[in-house]
Amino acid sequence: MKKTAIAPANIALIKYWGKRDASLNLPLNSSFSMNLSELSTTTTIQFRQLKKDEISLDGHDATTEDRERVVRHLDRIRKIAGTSFRARVVSRNTFPTGVGIASSASGFAALTLAATRALGLRLSEKQLSLLARRGSGSACRSVPDGFVEWVVGKRDEDSYAFSLHPPDFWDIHDVVVLVSRRMKKVTSTEGHSLAPTSPFFQVRLRDIPRRLSLLKKALKEKDFSTFGRVVEEEALNMHAVMMTSSPPLLYWEPVTLKVMLLVFQMRDEGLQAYVTLDAGPTVHVICQANDAERLARKLRTVEGVIAVIDNKPGKGARVVEEHLF
Amino acid sequence: MKKTAIAPANIALIKYWGKRDASLNLPLNSSFSMNLSELSTTTTIQFRQLKKDEISLDGHDATTEDRERVVRHLDRIRKIAGTSFRARVVSRNTFPTGVGIASSASGFAALTLAATRALGLRLSEKQLSLLARRGSGSACRSVPDGFVEWVVGKRDEDSYAFSLHPPDFWDIHDVVVLVSRRMKKVTSTEGHSLAPTSPFFQVRLRDIPRRLSLLKKALKEKDFSTFGRVVEEEALNMHAVMMTSSPPLLYWEPVTLKVMLLVFQMRDEGLQAYVTLDAGPTVHVICQANDAERLARKLRTVEGVIAVIDNKPGKGARVVEEHLF
Repeated sequence: MKKTAIAPANIALIKYWGKRDASLNLPLNSSFSMNLSELSTTTTIQFRQLKKDEISLDGHDATTEDRERVVRHLDRIRKIAGTSFRARVVSRNTFPTGVGIASSASGFAALTLAATRALGLRLSEKQLSLLARRGSGSACRSVPDGFVEWVVGKRDEDSYAFSLHPPDFWDIHDVVVLVSRRMKKVTSTEGHSLAPTSPFFQVRLRDIPRRLSLLKKALKEKDFSTFGRVVEEEALNMHAVMMTSSPPLLYWEPVTLKVMLLVFQMRDEGLQAYVTLDAGPTVHVICQANDAERLARKLRTVEGVIAVIDNKPGKGARVVEEHLF
Repeated sequence: MKKTAIAPANIALIKYWGKRDASLNLPLNSSFSMNLSELSTTTTIQFRQLKKDEISLDGHDATTEDRERVVRHLDRIRKIAGTSFRARVVSRNTFPTGVGIASSASGFAALTLAATRALGLRLSEKQLSLLARRGSGSACRSVPDGFVEWVVGKRDEDSYAFSLHPPDFWDIHDVVVLVSRRMKKVTSTEGHSLAPTSPFFQVRLRDIPRRLSLLKKALKEKDFSTFGRVVEEEALNMHAVMMTSSPPLLYWEPVTLKVMLLVFQMRDEGLQAYVTLDAGPTVHVICQANDAERLARKLRTVEGVIAVIDNKPGKGARVVEEHLF
């Protein structure tokens, strides 16, 4: 059967950095994210008698590395369903590839949902989240709706993500500012393994529960300035850990910093906006709905900025009827 | 009597960040620096019967803030000498002001030496270093020659700097890259007081003795790659602490990062060069003598770079015969 699913990218507000089990993608800390309304992956899959999996990503055959990762994930799902059929997979992102948006979260969430449905499996949201996590850690957060917590858990079976609030709970935006077409030199996977080499990593880990509960409280109370301050503090904390790893990881580009400094300046002038960054040069500017358009307009004028994409809180992974093939 | 002294700026290789006593400028950790051959302050002073101190810095009357700081320091010296004479002070830097080179180290070292000599005091190098420290902490390191350690000490009388190696011990360079004319928004004095608000500060402090002894060993053995790695690690460590302070301190400009990334890239291509930064956007590129000219030439081509100044290890503070008035 042919099935198509769509899944959002998500921005981590409390970050996932450091794994306790690299093969299971078990994290060292709980994390928290918001799904993004405008950045998503759509994946259509059909299992058939084929010699090998046929995988097309954004109109091209997958690279060897991407292919292996997808096939490994399909193997997990085939094992659950008890089939040896190969699959035709066609996947498209709403955003340009290779500009610093990690597409593995939305990609593996969409693949997990589409593939399980195509094989007739009806997994619960929790089961889908657990399974997506095996493909790419942060993909587990792209399964539930809106504002999502990924609990660190104690073992494979209880490290999954769930929705804490639906997308319409709070109308805040993530204005995503793309600043680079370069592929990052150090992948997130390699980065995770370097995290514990920072002398600051253990302090970071110990402090995360406090920051996570601060963030959840500010979210519940819709206290935007506290929320924003925690979000920005968390991002700088992770990047401070990265930059003190051995070897040091510097994910920022000059334009990254230009955008950050501009946001700080606009905040000094009264606009409530806060920055966060994942393991890459893309800047995410978190702001209230009223300010998003003005902010996006201003950020588009910055020399070196490639694109600015204004996002609301988004839905999680869902099945859709329009197939890609 | 009229006396003139010259004192070098210094680049901290193990940084001074955080004070245990702000009025005495007593540090929380030992630090280590290299004096710079091409960046210095020359100061001429004459004590006379005047209504008030007349202070000219780089051809202009000192600002109120600078003036107060200089007068407070002159008062310390007048007290030691037992005089109430006011002074005429004329001071000049070899480098442009307001482009991100802290001139307080060279400035207070030169002032301390010139003023004590003009009042007929003959202080030892240790006494001069202790006294210069009262004017500006890092000024104590601009008193001795070459490669200098400032010991954290236990009290006022034993927190001073001394020369570990003369300037000609090792022919390494500091290629100073000026990238901004903007005055930094947060002064070092304010920054020092924020240091303990970083969750990482205590870890940094505990780790400094290890890093300092690694650096001194690499210096003694003239092991440049170890030396450079420690220097760069230390700089990123301090900036990670700064960026996780409350509020966060980001001293980098976009061009700062551009220069850093270029140095990393040149290193990937085989050039041994390492970066360090003080509490400002200026990048100091530490390299071996053979590579300095090529590096400086390349860095001058970077858009946004204001000036590149190639320094050797420099002498400490000394009296000279050529007066500024």
